Amino acid sequence: MSFLVLLFDLIGTFVFALSGGTLAVRHRLDFFGVLVLSCAAAVSGGLARDVMIGAQPPAALADWRYLATAMVAGVLTFYRHQSIEHMRNPVQLFDAAGLALFAVLGTGKALAFGLSPFAAVLLGMISGIGGGIARDLLVARTPVVLRAELYAVAALAGGGVVAVAHVAGLPQTPAMAAGAVVCFGLRFMAIRHGWHLPVARAPEDGR
Amino acid sequence: MSFLVLLFDLIGTFVFALSGGTLAVRHRLDFFGVLVLSCAAAVSGGLARDVMIGAQPPAALADWRYLATAMVAGVLTFYRHQSIEHMRNPVQLFDAAGLALFAVLGTGKALAFGLSPFAAVLLGMISGIGGGIARDLLVARTPVVLRAELYAVAALAGGGVVAVAHVAGLPQTPAMAAGAVVCFGLRFMAIRHGWHLPVARAPEDGR
Amino acid sequence: MSFLVLLFDLIGTFVFALSGGTLAVRHRLDFFGVLVLSCAAAVSGGLARDVMIGAQPPAALADWRYLATAMVAGVLTFYRHQSIEHMRNPVQLFDAAGLALFAVLGTGKALAFGLSPFAAVLLGMISGIGGGIARDLLVARTPVVLRAELYAVAALAGGGVVAVAHVAGLPQTPAMAAGAVVCFGLRFMAIRHGWHLPVARAPEDGR
Repeated sequence: MSFLVLLFDLIGTFVFALSGGTLAVRHRLDFFGVLVLSCAAAVSGGLARDVMIGAQPPAALADWRYLATAMVAGVLTFYRHQSIEHMRNPVQLFDAAGLALFAVLGTGKALAFGLSPFAAVLLGMISGIGGGIARDLLVARTPVVLRAELYAVAALAGGGVVAVAHVAGLPQTPAMAAGAVVCFGLRFMAIRHGWHLPVARAPEDGR
Repeated sequence: MSFLVLLFDLIGTFVFALSGGTLAVRHRLDFFGVLVLSCAAAVSGGLARDVMIGAQPPAALADWRYLATAMVAGVLTFYRHQSIEHMRNPVQLFDAAGLALFAVLGTGKALAFGLSPFAAVLLGMISGIGGGIARDLLVARTPVVLRAELYAVAALAGGGVVAVAHVAGLPQTPAMAAGAVVCFGLRFMAIRHGWHLPVARAPEDGR
Repeated sequence: MSFLVLLFDLIGTFVFALSGGTLAVRHRLDFFGVLVLSCAAAVSGGLARDVMIGAQPPAALADWRYLATAMVAGVLTFYRHQSIEHMRNPVQLFDAAGLALFAVLGTGKALAFGLSPFAAVLLGMISGIGGGIARDLLVARTPVVLRAELYAVAALAGGGVVAVAHVAGLPQTPAMAAGAVVCFGLRFMAIRHGWHLPVARAPEDGR
């Protein structure tokens, strides 16, 4: 199981890094800027989680494989930008898988550090969406994860399954698998059917 | 006293969350985006303070009442956006009260963690203005707390009273009350009379 | 040696603060906003590093001289904005010196806290470029350090020298001096000759 988790964790890292690299290329950043946005998109969520629960140094710095994976994705994006843009659909699926895994693993890690189930679910969500927020802030735009179809809600649902199982004293591994399936399934259906949350009617225009 | 502090702390949280939710509605974020901006505005300042002084997990995650309060404010903003916009004046008063309380409580917490009075005052200011900064960065605009009438200066003055009393060995509770009055009074007068700090004359235009 | 390090560290702090203050004046922030951007540009990199390695409270808060230096630079920028804009060339040199020192000192501090050489070099880079990133995010623009001529690459090279020397068991002080020279030299040559990294060709326009 542990090898499988690492594998998915690195796949999630890789796909999140692709999203950062792609955005950097579109904003005409140089080679290094592409690497930075790849890494920021891949590891910021986990970094924020680890700093908040007091797990220092953060896993993304303690284990070189995460940043190395993110950098490989960044180099690939730099040289094969157009091919990656054409693979938008498979990338979205991997992104949903990465989100699911980051959310349940983040929730599990927060529980292991003694946080309450409520806080743990929030930290799982931060693990999942923090990278996308950092990526978008670095090019000065409102984070799309705050708008995308059920993106963060799917992360909350996945982490919620893990937290409920924890409170009920159920074994953690199947709970994480179930949480990941819930998160992935919700996000998949939302992309497929264009599900989204309502928007409040603002009386005046923008700003 | 402790109950009173909690009460004001939650009122401050609620009002800061209203400011975040209102901004999110104006930027046409969806239901979840409104909740995120409400929470970010309400707890980011305290989160940053706690991470810097090594108080992990941060109070905003360890105690569910803060985020629950922020979420209630977010839901309210989503469904009653126009009514809240009409109450701009009372909201500004509560916001000044929240700022005053966050600043003196943040300074006190930093002193309790052994930081120097100088650092404690800065951390009090960060507690007070950090939420507004996070809120504005999430919609990619320059934080208004860096421009508003004596906003951060009032927070510094309030925290300064607490720190000076600490150095002088005076009892903390009345010092906090005095600091809160100073901060609130300064901010209130600044809103009322349009007080603001000078702006340097820039020779060239923007950017 | 230690006095020399402190001296250079404060010079770096001062020059980074000038860059923050100058940006704030151009964006027409008020007196306090100028001070905040000065401080953010000067200490954010070290703050982020210290929070990630668990060195709480961060040096920038524990030692008042850093923020005091940054504030002096901010006040100076506010009242002497035009003179500082005219000294762009010497300021760029000092900025390169500050970058070099922050990168090697940051790498050394991370190694002293037991991080791997790989993580330590990254933390050195964060120490060097974090201030510039925070400064630019506060006025909602894409950080120029992600675009400037070999800026972060120079920081990585300088930190890399320190980390390699650490692995090889060589004494730290000369390694830091050598790393600082490498970083400064690379950045100096890049400014002088307009060296920069390649930019990927994006098929579509912006966004």
